[in-house]
Amino acid sequence: MHRHITGFSNPTVKHLRSLRDRKHRRRAGEFLVEGLRLLEDARASGRLPRLLVKAEGRETHELLARIESEVVAAGGEIVTTTPDILTKITGKANPQAVAGVFGEWDTGLARLDRGAAAIWLVAQDLRDPGNLGTMLRTGDAVGAGGLILVDDCADPFSAEAVRASMGAVFTQAIARARWTEFAEWLRSGEGQLVAASLRDAVPYRGAPYAAPCFILIGNESQGLPESYEAACDLRVTMPMRGRADSLNAAVAGAVLAYEVLAALEG
Amino acid sequence: MHRHITGFSNPTVKHLRSLRDRKHRRRAGEFLVEGLRLLEDARASGRLPRLLVKAEGRETHELLARIESEVVAAGGEIVTTTPDILTKITGKANPQAVAGVFGEWDTGLARLDRGAAAIWLVAQDLRDPGNLGTMLRTGDAVGAGGLILVDDCADPFSAEAVRASMGAVFTQAIARARWTEFAEWLRSGEGQLVAASLRDAVPYRGAPYAAPCFILIGNESQGLPESYEAACDLRVTMPMRGRADSLNAAVAGAVLAYEVLAALEG
Repeated sequence: MHRHITGFSNPTVKHLRSLRDRKHRRRAGEFLVEGLRLLEDARASGRLPRLLVKAEGRETHELLARIESEVVAAGGEIVTTTPDILTKITGKANPQAVAGVFGEWDTGLARLDRGAAAIWLVAQDLRDPGNLGTMLRTGDAVGAGGLILVDDCADPFSAEAVRASMGAVFTQAIARARWTEFAEWLRSGEGQLVAASLRDAVPYRGAPYAAPCFILIGNESQGLPESYEAACDLRVTMPMRGRADSLNAAVAGAVLAYEVLAALEG
Repeated sequence: MHRHITGFSNPTVKHLRSLRDRKHRRRAGEFLVEGLRLLEDARASGRLPRLLVKAEGRETHELLARIESEVVAAGGEIVTTTPDILTKITGKANPQAVAGVFGEWDTGLARLDRGAAAIWLVAQDLRDPGNLGTMLRTGDAVGAGGLILVDDCADPFSAEAVRASMGAVFTQAIARARWTEFAEWLRSGEGQLVAASLRDAVPYRGAPYAAPCFILIGNESQGLPESYEAACDLRVTMPMRGRADSLNAAVAGAVLAYEVLAALEG
């Protein structure tokens, strides 16, 4: 279906605009992705927007034309509108010429196939959407199965997280859980839980990693609660040669993930 | 010297506020750091603010009292003011109760002691201040000597970079240079230049790293120019198991820096 929208007070415009707020995203179960590059990443990962909104009067890029026809074939909607309305929707003075609305996904712990990948990333109470997006990007790079969000994490479907993921958000399974729920699920099958820690830890280099390996990264300022660390199968520590006693959360996750990858692939 | 300021149009207020702009920071050679934690990090690294500005009518924390007396002893200035004026200065609705003005430093290539550390980080055209700050933090963690900013990088003294560095900005030497200047300086002494690359590269794991090792990280979207890569002594590649062909710049730098650290300390 194709529509042309020129009114600022059109309900679709209001709805798309509201997706900038986390609350509205959760309620609608949808999020907005800006720009052809991310839309093409989504398509390549088998995800199509339900609705595509684009600036009127522009020549259609070949990649966009393909996405459009796939969206229409899948029963989705194409909306053309004015640059001003795109600005209103995205909140940016110079928005990209196209954006898409995707349904959120939450694979759910029960539906994660833990045997499908050797590495899984687990974020606990991570508050910075940029860090979450970077973890998704790293997860894609190390061939992780997905990202499990434990307790109160930032929204992986926020514009900032999606952008920081560089499209990896579309390749990674995402599941949300409280800690007890996660711990119970983890122990219902195979899996090694590893945390970067300063307590009772072994050097991260050469530690006895085993697949499927769940790499647990804690909150940016508090780190992991002590009881969560205690529940891990392995606590590892990275050299800290300077004044600081910790790394950026996404950096710690990446250094550890690449170490685990090297260890498991021997 | 102590002063109390209550007027929004006070020249000191205007000056402090102007430090939110890069242009003004460069002209004044000064930057503003918010919060007791970062100020204490600075003090512990031997750096004191020239001027300390704090909210009136608050009880003075023990750490702050020590910084204050050291600032005064060093000939600096203590300014008390209203919360509203602190809001105006920092641009934040809920600013921290204290901020300090520091002189910027640029060690300059000529004054870098390359033998003083086994690892040096080099950022080329890195535009995200958060990435720069994260690289400073990682540099501190791996015991790097400093961060060399090649070509047009973001400002390491911006509030965002300083915050992301978690105080590591105060421990790291910082030098700025154009590429040709950097290349000339590098070849005037010992030093191995290493880039993460997809071209003609060897696996990053087990590559023949040598101290002092200069780890070169390129622009977030373009990567390194081909000629810069060609000028490197070693091009290494990290596994990319997913759809993406690159890592976040600060993440790539960290994974590589920890690998170099392990190799050199073997």
